[in-house]
Order: sequence, then C-alpha cells, then structure tokens
Amino acid sequence: MSPFVAEFIGTMMLVLFGNGVVANVVLARTKGNGSGWIVITAGWGIAVFVGAFCAGDFSGAHLNPAVTAAMLIAGKLPWSAGVSYCAAQMLGAITGAALVFLFYREHFKASDDAEGKLACFCTSPNIRNLPQAFFCEVVGTFALILPIFLIVTPSLTQGDVPADTDPTLGLGSLGYLTVGLLVFGIGLSLGGTTGYAINPARDLGPRLVHALWPIPGKRDSDWRYAWVPVVGPLVGGALAAIVYKLIA
Amino acid sequence: MSPFVAEFIGTMMLVLFGNGVVANVVLARTKGNGSGWIVITAGWGIAVFVGAFCAGDFSGAHLNPAVTAAMLIAGKLPWSAGVSYCAAQMLGAITGAALVFLFYREHFKASDDAEGKLACFCTSPNIRNLPQAFFCEVVGTFALILPIFLIVTPSLTQGDVPADTDPTLGLGSLGYLTVGLLVFGIGLSLGGTTGYAINPARDLGPRLVHALWPIPGKRDSDWRYAWVPVVGPLVGGALAAIVYKLIA
Amino acid sequence: MSPFVAEFIGTMMLVLFGNGVVANVVLARTKGNGSGWIVITAGWGIAVFVGAFCAGDFSGAHLNPAVTAAMLIAGKLPWSAGVSYCAAQMLGAITGAALVFLFYREHFKASDDAEGKLACFCTSPNIRNLPQAFFCEVVGTFALILPIFLIVTPSLTQGDVPADTDPTLGLGSLGYLTVGLLVFGIGLSLGGTTGYAINPARDLGPRLVHALWPIPGKRDSDWRYAWVPVVGPLVGGALAAIVYKLIA
Amino acid sequence: MSPFVAEFIGTMMLVLFGNGVVANVVLARTKGNGSGWIVITAGWGIAVFVGAFCAGDFSGAHLNPAVTAAMLIAGKLPWSAGVSYCAAQMLGAITGAALVFLFYREHFKASDDAEGKLACFCTSPNIRNLPQAFFCEVVGTFALILPIFLIVTPSLTQGDVPADTDPTLGLGSLGYLTVGLLVFGIGLSLGGTTGYAINPARDLGPRLVHALWPIPGKRDSDWRYAWVPVVGPLVGGALAAIVYKLIA
Repeated sequence: MSPFVAEFIGTMMLVLFGNGVVANVVLARTKGNGSGWIVITAGWGIAVFVGAFCAGDFSGAHLNPAVTAAMLIAGKLPWSAGVSYCAAQMLGAITGAALVFLFYREHFKASDDAEGKLACFCTSPNIRNLPQAFFCEVVGTFALILPIFLIVTPSLTQGDVPADTDPTLGLGSLGYLTVGLLVFGIGLSLGGTTGYAINPARDLGPRLVHALWPIPGKRDSDWRYAWVPVVGPLVGGALAAIVYKLIA
Repeated sequence: MSPFVAEFIGTMMLVLFGNGVVANVVLARTKGNGSGWIVITAGWGIAVFVGAFCAGDFSGAHLNPAVTAAMLIAGKLPWSAGVSYCAAQMLGAITGAALVFLFYREHFKASDDAEGKLACFCTSPNIRNLPQAFFCEVVGTFALILPIFLIVTPSLTQGDVPADTDPTLGLGSLGYLTVGLLVFGIGLSLGGTTGYAINPARDLGPRLVHALWPIPGKRDSDWRYAWVPVVGPLVGGALAAIVYKLIA
Repeated sequence: MSPFVAEFIGTMMLVLFGNGVVANVVLARTKGNGSGWIVITAGWGIAVFVGAFCAGDFSGAHLNPAVTAAMLIAGKLPWSAGVSYCAAQMLGAITGAALVFLFYREHFKASDDAEGKLACFCTSPNIRNLPQAFFCEVVGTFALILPIFLIVTPSLTQGDVPADTDPTLGLGSLGYLTVGLLVFGIGLSLGGTTGYAINPARDLGPRLVHALWPIPGKRDSDWRYAWVPVVGPLVGGALAAIVYKLIA
Repeated sequence: MSPFVAEFIGTMMLVLFGNGVVANVVLARTKGNGSGWIVITAGWGIAVFVGAFCAGDFSGAHLNPAVTAAMLIAGKLPWSAGVSYCAAQMLGAITGAALVFLFYREHFKASDDAEGKLACFCTSPNIRNLPQAFFCEVVGTFALILPIFLIVTPSLTQGDVPADTDPTLGLGSLGYLTVGLLVFGIGLSLGGTTGYAINPARDLGPRLVHALWPIPGKRDSDWRYAWVPVVGPLVGGALAAIVYKLIA
C-alpha cells in the first residue's frame, strides 16, 4: 500500500467514525440520540485508533496535516512528501464526510436542527470569541503532537522502524492505542470550548461537503470560522515540533 | 480444540455477552435498566473481545459468516472449511440467545415492551427504509472487515502464524482487543441507524430462537427485515476483501 | 511475597475498589452519587485488574474461591494449596469491606437507604427467585472462568510460566487487563439480575462485616440469600473446569 | 531530556488534562457541561497516562511528590534527586493550572458558580470532616502507590531498566496504561469523598494559581483544607513504601 493510499484510507476511516458518532448523538431518531459527551469522545478516540492502525506503517499514520507539518519541521518526513500526504488527507476526509451523510441520510431528513447538522461535518465554538477559539485549537493540537513525539513508537515516524518490530506481531498497535487514548483525553479535557478540531483536514474537508452537498434543511457552512480549525492546529503542531527539538 | 468447537464457543460467548447487555438495558427491573448507548456499545465491544480470545488461534476467531466469507474470498481460508465455520457460528449464536433468555427469564416476564424483547434477540432499524438499512449494514460491515485485514495480526487469519508468536505469551490478545475496540467504535459511530448487526449469525440465529421459543408477551419476529442483516454484512465483507486485494 | 500474602492483598484491593465504587454511586452526598451502571461496572472491572496485578505471579492471582476450585479440578493447583488460598481470599475480602466502610463512614451516616447500605457489602437479586438467581450466578461464573482457562496466559495458572516471560517486562499485565475487561463485560451483560457476585469471598466476607459491624441505620444482612452467591459461583467454576477438560 | 524537564512537562500535562476535564464538566456553556463522574474519572485516568508516557524513562514518571517520597523511602531514587523532582512537579502543576484557566477563560466568565471554579483548581471534600478527609487521602494514595510498587515495570522505577526493554518498542507504555487505569479506578471507587487529590503538587500548585490569579467571581482558596491533600498523600505514599518493604 502506498503512503498516499494509506493516508487516504486512514483519514476516511477517521472521519467516518468521528463524524459518525456526532451524527448518532445529535441527529433525531438515532439509537444513540442524546447519549452525551462520553459517547462522542470515546467515538473520536476509537476513530483515531482505527484510522491509525489502518494506515499503519505504510505511511506512519499521520491522518492530519498538523501532524505532517510537525513531522516536516522536526525533520522526520522528507519535504517532498508533505503535499502528497496533505492531499490524501483532504480527499480521505471529504470521502468520509460524504459517507456519513449517506449513512445517516434518513436521520438528516428527520432532524430539524440546522446547527446539529453542521456539527456532523465540522466544529464550531460554544462561545464565539475567535482569538480565544484560535488559542484553544493551538493548545489542543500542541497537547496532541508533543506527546506523539514523546512516545517515539516506530509506527508514528517514518523511516526509523527498528528491524525487530514486525508489524504482523501486532506490537505496533500499542502506539496506535496510545494515540487513540490521547485523543479520547483531549476530547474529555480540552474539547469543551471549540469541539477540538485539532486537524485541518478533519474540519475543512467535511465543511466543503456541507457547503456543496444538497443537505435538507442545512444552514450556511460558517466560513467565517473555517480558518480557526485550519490555522490553529498548524500553529500548534509547529510549536510542538519546536519544543520537541528544544527539549529532546 | 477443533475449529468447529472454537467457533461454536466463541460465537456463543459473543451472543451471550452481546444480547445480554441489550437485555440488561432494555428489560424491566434489571440493574442496568435505561443505562444507555455507552453501556450497550461497550458491552458488545467486550462481547467480541471475549468471543475472539476464547476461539483464538484454534479457528482464527471469525465468529461471523461475513468474516468467513471475506477470508474465503481473500484466499485466507480453504473453501472446504467455510460451511463448517458458518454452521458452528449459527449453532453458537442460537445457543447464546437461548442462554440470554434463560438468564433474563424473570425480566422477560416483568417487561411489557414487545419491541424491547425482540431487540434482545435481533436488530431492527429506527427508520424503516429497507434499501437504506441494507446500505448501512454494508458500510458497517465494510468498516469492520477492511480494518481487520489491515491489522494483519496472526490470530485473525488462519495459517500464517509466525513461529515466534506463542499464544501463551498473551501477545495475541492485542489483536483481539483491537477488534473489540473496533466493534465498540462501530457501535458508537455507525450503530445509530440499524443497530449494527454486521454479522448474519448474530442476527439470524437469535431471531430463530425468538420465533420458536414461547417467550411471554412477544411480538412477531419481523421476518420481512431478516434478509437485511444477513445479506448486507455478506456484501460488506465481500467488498472489504475485494478492496483489500486491490490495495494491499 | 508468599501466595497467601499475595491472595490477601489482591482480594483486599479487589473489594476495596469494587465495593468502593458501589458506595460512591449508592450512598448520599458522594461525588459519584447516581452516576449509574457504567461507573459500577467499570469500577469492578478495574478492581479485578488492580487486584490481579498486585497478586500477580506470586500466587497466580485467583482472588476468588471459584477460580481456585476450578484450578484444583483442572489440576493446575496442588490440592494442598486450596485451603490456604481460600482463607487468604476471605480475610482479604473482610479487610477490604471494613476499609470501604471506614472510607465512606460519613456517607453511611448521611444515607437513609438501608438497601443501598447493604449493597455496599454484598449482592442481592432485583427479582427474588432463588433458583433463578442461583442459575444466574452459575452462568455468570462459568462465563468468567471458561474464558480464563482459554486465555492460557502464564500469569493465571501457577507453575507453567515460560522462561521468557519476565514479569518485569510488563507483558504479564496483558493477561490481567484481559480478565479485568472480562469482568467489566460480565457486569455490563450479565450483572442485571443478581448483581454478579461470581465470587464467594467477595460476597460472604463483606456480608460478615455488614452483620458484625455497628453500621448506622443498617437492615439485616439477608442471610437467606447468602448461600446463592457462594454455591452458585463454585458450581459455575467447577462446570467451567469440566468443560475445559472436555474440549481442550 | 533531563529528569527535571521530564517531570515538569509530565506534571504540566497531568494537570492540563486533569483540571481541564473538571472545567469541561463544571463550568457553564461548555460542550461537556454536566456530563458526569464517568467523564471526570476517565479524563483524570488519561491525564495520568499522558503525563506518564511524556515523562517516561527520562525521569521514571513520578509526577507526584507522594510517589517521589515513596521511591526515596524504598531506596529506588537517590535522596539528592528528591528536591529537584518535587520542584519540577510543583512548577509543572502551576503551569498546567494556568493553562486550564487561559483555555477555559470565556467559560470562567460565563459561570456563576464560585465552588465550581475552585474545583477547576483543587479538591474539597463533600462532607467537611477534616480528620476523615485526611484518612481518605491516606487510603487513596496508599491504593495508588502499593500497586505501583507491585507492577515493577521498568518505567516506574529509575535505574533498573533491563537492557532489552527499548522504549522505542512501545512496551513501556503498558506500564503507563496500567497506572492510568489504576487512577481511573481510584476516581471511580475512592473519589467519592474528597475528590482524590492523592498528589500534593496536583492540589497545592493549582490552589496557588487560584489564590494569586484575578479569576472573575472567585471565592477564597480554602486554605484551611489545603494541608489535607498535601500531608495525606505523603503519609499514604510512605505507608505504601513501608508495607512494600515488609512484604516484598
């Protein structure tokens, strides 16, 4: 599997599971309707775990332009690979978001809540203060990517897989589980303000689908906010790479 | 332990734990009554984990005709084994469903909700649109089986166990835990529409028990819907095997 | 650490954490008051995990006379060790229950609910049908102990630790985590009827503390029910050992 | 990374995630508002897991003066290192608490609940009986640190890392996950009385931030209670070290 295909499939799975759990909690007449924050954060944690082990050692399982940017800055990925990684992530996120809409189509029809429908695609802050929301996305992504650097499992950084870590042994999945639990924790602890995009592709790709697809009873796609969950995570990831370089 | 016995015991455990958690949440006067979607999805995730490590390397822990079909298509199981695997899975699911009824017998008597009693055996969609429900079962099972192929742990595919993965070391259970978490995630994210059968034996076997057993205050067994959670998962599994062959 | 001390400390931890979570959910004015079945079952799952890794390879981490009985029947523990194991388990359970009362003392004073106070010590069925409750304890314990046999991790059965599984590597804890998740699942799926004692020491030891200690506003200790969570688990464990001998 | 930097970053992450989840549940207009005890305890469990694997083998991941004291008493850390470890832990906790305030700043403004705002920094007992609260902090910390000694994973005690446990293999994270689950369990089972500080730095550092920072609508910082979550955990940790010495 090429890194491009791995990042595409991994990010598609990430958004299928991640936006899927929001749809299950938010839309009308679902089995998980109103089941709360523990369901949303557990669902996103597993979304990252599943996306990561699907991409696995084929690409290093970035699934997130902020991770790719941080790996580029830290010198753990050749610059030539960056554009291809981010393109695969955007295409995967778009495909995943389209699948979630098709999957929950009947429930999009059954719901009246235009805010909730938008939330099945992309994030928005509970209190609208854009500089503060930007700060939250920077901190949230920093709290994702500095720990990722400090795990130093082979599966998260391309090119330094020790000879004795055969992925067929399943040992690699400990690293993916760690990152999944980390994202579960970011949701529980730091998701309360902006809804923790912490990933430009996860927010921008689905927002494009919301804007372009004929969704029944949708509101506008809140493009004024769209830069926050793109630029914030990139800045947070870059900061994490710089701090990592300074301390490790 | 022969593969037949392993698949029988594993699928029996899967349905005992899986349908058991539905009974605990849905039936009257249980200790878990009304405890919600997080309980149901965590219970099903552990059901798969327990069933899988019980069957383990003895059979490869399929527990699901859709997994067996996908393994056959991918060439990871000899065609001669397919019928025996599926027969063991159906018998295990029937036994597990009977045990759940016997276990929660007093609570079946205490409940008035005929829909809830049926839900202790098999799935039904919240919004009745059969082609859409079929699509959901295809996607849900695809999201189960493509990741299973991409884990490539030795315990999930017969015949390629490397010499150095002694199951007594417990390393194999990482693969089973991964699949359990995956099913937990499918429930959280993709269970909201049809209730994620994603397994023909898990749905058809218990539905037969519901139809034949004299359950107090039961409704009909909804045979019009019964083909959806049988054919959908088989199609989703076959699609996953084909995509896996194309990309890996 | 001798096996006796290991079983004592492990079972004390098991009951401290297990009965502790019931007290937190059930008693008045606690921080976890009314937080539901997911909290109780997660707490008991971790109770088993913590108790098991504390006892660890020192004793094989039985913590449960039903496990010890099954290991004796299966020939995995010498008969001479059985009495000492069960005595340590009873003393550990009594100590753990006393600690929970001392810990939540102010909340025992603040609560009016005599049923809830008893539930902080031992189990009782939601629907009072003793033969059915006995059947549930047999099935619940069978669903605990047959999977334990089928894990075949070195840490669960004395005397067959392969030379290369140094406990300092932490690999052993995979087995303990597996058993903790198994008990979490038994609670979710099979705890709805009797409250899943599945362990004679866990129920009888604390019941003795409830009977003998001057607890404010307590009811009687329900000795008529006390044989069910003692005999049921022993029968379930013996059945599991016999089935294991037949199939493996 | 020096042990000082590792303890600083690890404790900062611990408090950022730990106090963050309290803010998300307690403050007004957050996405996790009112999501309950399962969210708080899961968040603190992951906070410990993340903090621990960030510090990792660089310092042994104490993150807690009670752990450091216990390691000193058990002879697993040279006495000269103790002051530096505790200073780094205090500075990390202060930094983490300041970050949580900055992160949830808009929600501190939107909340009227001065008790809840204090709870985003430090603990307080639900029933105000200081000797009893002291006893609870002793028992809670004992239940943290005796199991930590009994895991004996290489990552938790400095200086005895076997040559074959390369942290890049990710095996070490099993030990961190074990401690994270242990703290999750302490919260579920023993958090109901005082809110389980079980760590002097985690309580005192943030309390200082609460006292000195101009937080809108804050109450006093409850300095009368402040000694309990400092002295209690130190006594509990010392007791665990002594018991460990006696039995192991």
